[in-house]
Amino acid sequence: TIAAPAIAQSMPEVKWRLASSFPKSLDTIYGGGEVMAKRVAEATDGKFQIRVFAGGEIVPGLQVLDAVQNGTVECGHTVSYYYVGKDPTFGFDASMPFGMNARQQNAWLYHGGGLQLMREFAKSYNITLFPGGNTGTQMGGWFRKEIKTVEDMKGLKYRIGGYAGKVMSKLGVVPQQIAGGDIYPALEKGTIDAAEWVGPYDDEKLGFNKVAPFYYYPGWWEGGPNVSFMVNLNEWAKLPKHYQAVFESACVEANTDMQAKYDAFNPAALKRLIAAGTQLRPFSKDIMVACYNAAQETYAEEAAKNPAFKKVWEHWKAFQADQLAWFRVAESGFDNFMQHGIPKK
Amino acid sequence: TIAAPAIAQSMPEVKWRLASSFPKSLDTIYGGGEVMAKRVAEATDGKFQIRVFAGGEIVPGLQVLDAVQNGTVECGHTVSYYYVGKDPTFGFDASMPFGMNARQQNAWLYHGGGLQLMREFAKSYNITLFPGGNTGTQMGGWFRKEIKTVEDMKGLKYRIGGYAGKVMSKLGVVPQQIAGGDIYPALEKGTIDAAEWVGPYDDEKLGFNKVAPFYYYPGWWEGGPNVSFMVNLNEWAKLPKHYQAVFESACVEANTDMQAKYDAFNPAALKRLIAAGTQLRPFSKDIMVACYNAAQETYAEEAAKNPAFKKVWEHWKAFQADQLAWFRVAESGFDNFMQHGIPKK
Repeated sequence: TIAAPAIAQSMPEVKWRLASSFPKSLDTIYGGGEVMAKRVAEATDGKFQIRVFAGGEIVPGLQVLDAVQNGTVECGHTVSYYYVGKDPTFGFDASMPFGMNARQQNAWLYHGGGLQLMREFAKSYNITLFPGGNTGTQMGGWFRKEIKTVEDMKGLKYRIGGYAGKVMSKLGVVPQQIAGGDIYPALEKGTIDAAEWVGPYDDEKLGFNKVAPFYYYPGWWEGGPNVSFMVNLNEWAKLPKHYQAVFESACVEANTDMQAKYDAFNPAALKRLIAAGTQLRPFSKDIMVACYNAAQETYAEEAAKNPAFKKVWEHWKAFQADQLAWFRVAESGFDNFMQHGIPKK
Repeated sequence: TIAAPAIAQSMPEVKWRLASSFPKSLDTIYGGGEVMAKRVAEATDGKFQIRVFAGGEIVPGLQVLDAVQNGTVECGHTVSYYYVGKDPTFGFDASMPFGMNARQQNAWLYHGGGLQLMREFAKSYNITLFPGGNTGTQMGGWFRKEIKTVEDMKGLKYRIGGYAGKVMSKLGVVPQQIAGGDIYPALEKGTIDAAEWVGPYDDEKLGFNKVAPFYYYPGWWEGGPNVSFMVNLNEWAKLPKHYQAVFESACVEANTDMQAKYDAFNPAALKRLIAAGTQLRPFSKDIMVACYNAAQETYAEEAAKNPAFKKVWEHWKAFQADQLAWFRVAESGFDNFMQHGIPKK
């Protein structure tokens, strides 16, 4: 049978495992892994199968990078800022305080040279990166009491992860690292004063509104956090070129699909939360400015001692400045009229 | 050779032609067709080939729907609002005056039920639809003289297409339908007073800044116009399921990729235009409100006589109202701080 090798070559059977950082209950963000895997299977007539495991099933949610790096799994679905403890440079792949919104982050990654920079950086971890989801601007989180001034932040026990915690500690906040499932009881008992998670659709599931009435915005540390697919470089090199193409395309699809899902589902959740008594509060201008300045200070300190961070930060902030100069015009003009300028009937 | 039929079945050779509405010179929007076609070829190991033809090569740019409908080509890349002359309902697939921004449009199409509605509507044209690109909020266009009040719009000869022209005619504007290549001389001679095209990156190529100094924003009739792939329904049904999956995924990729490209390229073009003397002007609040009211009137008139339009409009506007209520919170809070609130050094 002369043709048999040709079949084997063109459509070999490949089975991968994907470690997700997320629990199945978060259908939007966990679902991004499934959207990708389903598409890859469909597009290869079932020949390239990727099985998705929730956080904790193979490795804990915050160790997905390690599992991909050491080949425990071929790929993962996670957020690069979970790994700022290894190197804060990872943060730029996802989101950094006062960084870019979702569209700007995509522009930087796909056509601004950002993904290339991040992949170069990630190479020493034996992984490569594919943008694979976004939540849009997150909420600032749930507060038991109102905060109005920068002074009110001193001593605040705030469940907030990674780099944002570092920034806020400059203002006297005492950042708390608490896993998703443990936030509710801590907030209920008052062991912590505030907690941030994602946005209305996800937060509602965890019930924070029942124990903290004030819902602050915006989550300036996550203006448009990119969720990433990470792939082990050895495994990637073994894939046939057309399976690589299918995988890459499916990752872009998962990216766009997750954002569309969050945008479609958040409004109804927000309505329900408000109907149940949640009170929306913007961070005051003073708080925003103090946090912005603290973030710039934090960046400068890190850049002074970390050349990899400095290289990406400088590229990223120049790109961001240009984005803001353009978004300030048409996009902002349109959005602000639609969101704030339509005459009341 | 027993295995030969299996090869033929799993990876048959398929050749399609794609008619684009766009000239090759517009690398971002024309390029969306090529991004999709290239990915489809790569993902099928070269077996499914789609050849992209620029506007005018097979059919004129504004007749792509017709060519797909009657099977002259298997698929096309176009903007559905080009076909509002057949039925204004088509406009919702792309963008309508005071409609949604790019993210909201994606949310409506992919997860709000919008694409399903539009596909039902498009079925009677023997086509199906795939979102396949976005420009983000466009500019309002190039004006020879400043306009400050609603009064200034009376008698204005404004190159503006489709449904926006209909809305503006309520305010005394005399809408002009002029093909891309003919706008420059008309604007130079003063045959027209103003012309809208896309945004900085595309507009710069056509040189409008040399003959009209005032660059207005926002293009409220294109807050986030979706560019569509249209596929002939008979041809779609003939595709193997996994080629359908590859095609669909590549369309989502082209959608996201085009937006990222526009976002990455517009800022530098805007800088160059401003350096060359272009003066940015926002439409005044009075003009925005008058246009908004004229748009609502136009919608109500159409809905009264067109049940298909009424059905989609009601779905679309309810979804939009919810989107605005949510975007007003975290997204607007973040964007407005970043775009307008950062303290000057």
